[in-house]
Amino acid sequence: MTPAITYELIKKDKQTGARLGIVHTPHGSFETPAFMPVGTQATVKTMSPEELKEMKAGIILSNTYHLWLRPGHDIIREAGGLHKFMNWDRAILTDSGGFQVFSLSDMRKIEEEGVHFRHHLDGSKLFLSPEKAMEIQNALGSDIMMAFDECPPYPASHEYMKASVERTSRWAERCLEAHTRPEDQGLFGIVQGGEYEDLRRQSVQDLTSLDFPGYAVGGLSVGEPKDVMNRVLDFTTPLLPENKPRYLMGVGSPDALIDGSIRGIDMFDCVLPTRIARNGTLMTSEGRLVVKNAKFARDFRPLDENCDCYVCQNYSRAYIRHLIKAEESFGIRLTSYHNLYFLMNLMEQVRQSIREDRLGDFREEFFEQYGYNKPNAKNF
Amino acid sequence: MTPAITYELIKKDKQTGARLGIVHTPHGSFETPAFMPVGTQATVKTMSPEELKEMKAGIILSNTYHLWLRPGHDIIREAGGLHKFMNWDRAILTDSGGFQVFSLSDMRKIEEEGVHFRHHLDGSKLFLSPEKAMEIQNALGSDIMMAFDECPPYPASHEYMKASVERTSRWAERCLEAHTRPEDQGLFGIVQGGEYEDLRRQSVQDLTSLDFPGYAVGGLSVGEPKDVMNRVLDFTTPLLPENKPRYLMGVGSPDALIDGSIRGIDMFDCVLPTRIARNGTLMTSEGRLVVKNAKFARDFRPLDENCDCYVCQNYSRAYIRHLIKAEESFGIRLTSYHNLYFLMNLMEQVRQSIREDRLGDFREEFFEQYGYNKPNAKNF
Ligand SMILES: [Zn+2]
Ligand SMILES: [Zn+2]
Repeated sequence: MTPAITYELIKKDKQTGARLGIVHTPHGSFETPAFMPVGTQATVKTMSPEELKEMKAGIILSNTYHLWLRPGHDIIREAGGLHKFMNWDRAILTDSGGFQVFSLSDMRKIEEEGVHFRHHLDGSKLFLSPEKAMEIQNALGSDIMMAFDECPPYPASHEYMKASVERTSRWAERCLEAHTRPEDQGLFGIVQGGEYEDLRRQSVQDLTSLDFPGYAVGGLSVGEPKDVMNRVLDFTTPLLPENKPRYLMGVGSPDALIDGSIRGIDMFDCVLPTRIARNGTLMTSEGRLVVKNAKFARDFRPLDENCDCYVCQNYSRAYIRHLIKAEESFGIRLTSYHNLYFLMNLMEQVRQSIREDRLGDFREEFFEQYGYNKPNAKNF
Repeated sequence: MTPAITYELIKKDKQTGARLGIVHTPHGSFETPAFMPVGTQATVKTMSPEELKEMKAGIILSNTYHLWLRPGHDIIREAGGLHKFMNWDRAILTDSGGFQVFSLSDMRKIEEEGVHFRHHLDGSKLFLSPEKAMEIQNALGSDIMMAFDECPPYPASHEYMKASVERTSRWAERCLEAHTRPEDQGLFGIVQGGEYEDLRRQSVQDLTSLDFPGYAVGGLSVGEPKDVMNRVLDFTTPLLPENKPRYLMGVGSPDALIDGSIRGIDMFDCVLPTRIARNGTLMTSEGRLVVKNAKFARDFRPLDENCDCYVCQNYSRAYIRHLIKAEESFGIRLTSYHNLYFLMNLMEQVRQSIREDRLGDFREEFFEQYGYNKPNAKNF
């Protein structure tokens, strides 16, 4: 059997060791390092599939927890799977639901069997386990599924984290056993262990012995400082097999995308570009821009003068500011489009820099222009 | 000087007398009878200009009152006019602001000079007059401007209506005098008079003596029964000159579009298609469909099986229901798109029926299929 997901390493950047590669899926291939737009409820907020293709998205992420609760995975299975349901014929990755259980729900109780918790909207009692997470993701039919893991908060004690890593490894094995469609869906394991090197090593050893077609680094971007994230990546990614893709979960700020790529990460996802777009906050080649500010009322320049996206070719800051002030959803369409395009374009620049063996130089130029070198620089 | 707006009569339907024509504007020509999508705040809610072109919109409407208050007509003038501000290079019609003053604002006081009233959002004191309405619309640069009129409520006494019609005629003359850009913006007069034939006649005589390039029939679709609207049109449109376009304001239900066309109307506008779309209510070839209803949860058919729009080609009722239940704005994009397309397509069918001298037959077929002949038929 050919695995559903394979990784092809094209080359490494001579300056940083970052990897240029291709991930092959049953719904097409995409170049890495890649950013995956997030479509939590079977839609990347405000965007059409055609618009995501215009910005060359090859894969999007959707959330198992949300789709399980609404509309229900049975309805999506009946529709012919998530691709057909949402009219997206390229690759889809679904998370396991674990992160949402730990971040959104109240009154959760973790047992060996799984997690008891309450619905974040209606308070009803729910139970999620490795087997249930696989059942849902098999029904959704995503190209890449994620193992059900525990994502502990930051910080957590070594003792707690060790028990959690061991349970996550036992759950990962149950996920592999419960997965019914390995021929057309690839299941990734999730490395946990917080900031503890020995536990990350233990987690990698446990999971690689199970031979997943890809590995995520979980438990980062949960509130820890950026240097902690980079340090954990520094000692974790070298432990991972070279011939499998590596996915850093929940990361979408420009600096972290570049720094993650430099540390050997191939895939990223984050709600950041669409979430900040809803407040009228933009990522531009010269840093953050809050288009709602009064100073843009008569600014007829594009959001980003160095951007060639649909929005920047056709609309002014003044117009977009007006739409957002007037609570017109077309404004959010435009800011979401630009922010997603900005990150997709950033990743293309990262890949091009790897091709040219100059990702270290690119990082310096980008950080300087974006304003990351200024005192009190914002995160995005 | 060539007038900014001209009307070309192509032919009349032998069954009904409905007019097939072309309105020529500085931003292109469009065939009539035509429906104009409404972009109140310089955006047709949720839609891009490209999507409006996909559905062959040749003209859209925008609201003087709203743009005056936000972002301000001075900003739009500075942007190079409304077309450039909102990235729409086809024709635009702006209303006069009168209707909003009479329908949205509190504490209005009508004087010969104009209308004092309070801002519908912040309560500040405002004044709108014929001269001010022209100043704003000249700044917006719309292809078709509307004269500032009083739109009395329904019902109103003959005495009140007579005084109102006479004031509206005096205001129309002041509008013509205040209009500074007749070479590239056409100003339409608005016929008032309520349900009184003698007052409609008086209004038409007053306005046609001023020789506007087009005429609207105002004061309808303000709560009166449909047979009252049709009766008023029956005695009003024959009084209007054949060589000028006629615009029935605020009408967008399928039956009224057909019945208005039959009575010699060339242009219509209404927020109905986008407003009902926001609740998940659709106009389909078989009548109204409320996609939020539970019975559509597992209905994988398109919104309208007889529709060839982008939405009906790519998405199911079940998916759109999910999006609307989940408060995802992409759902409203899809329902808005379909409803607008439905009306644009209906008007194309009306024009084709006029070409074939069968609009009376088309009316019967359409009313039957849409459900208008059923007892307790809904309005749309
Ligand atoms: Zn842009
Ligand atoms: Zn349709």
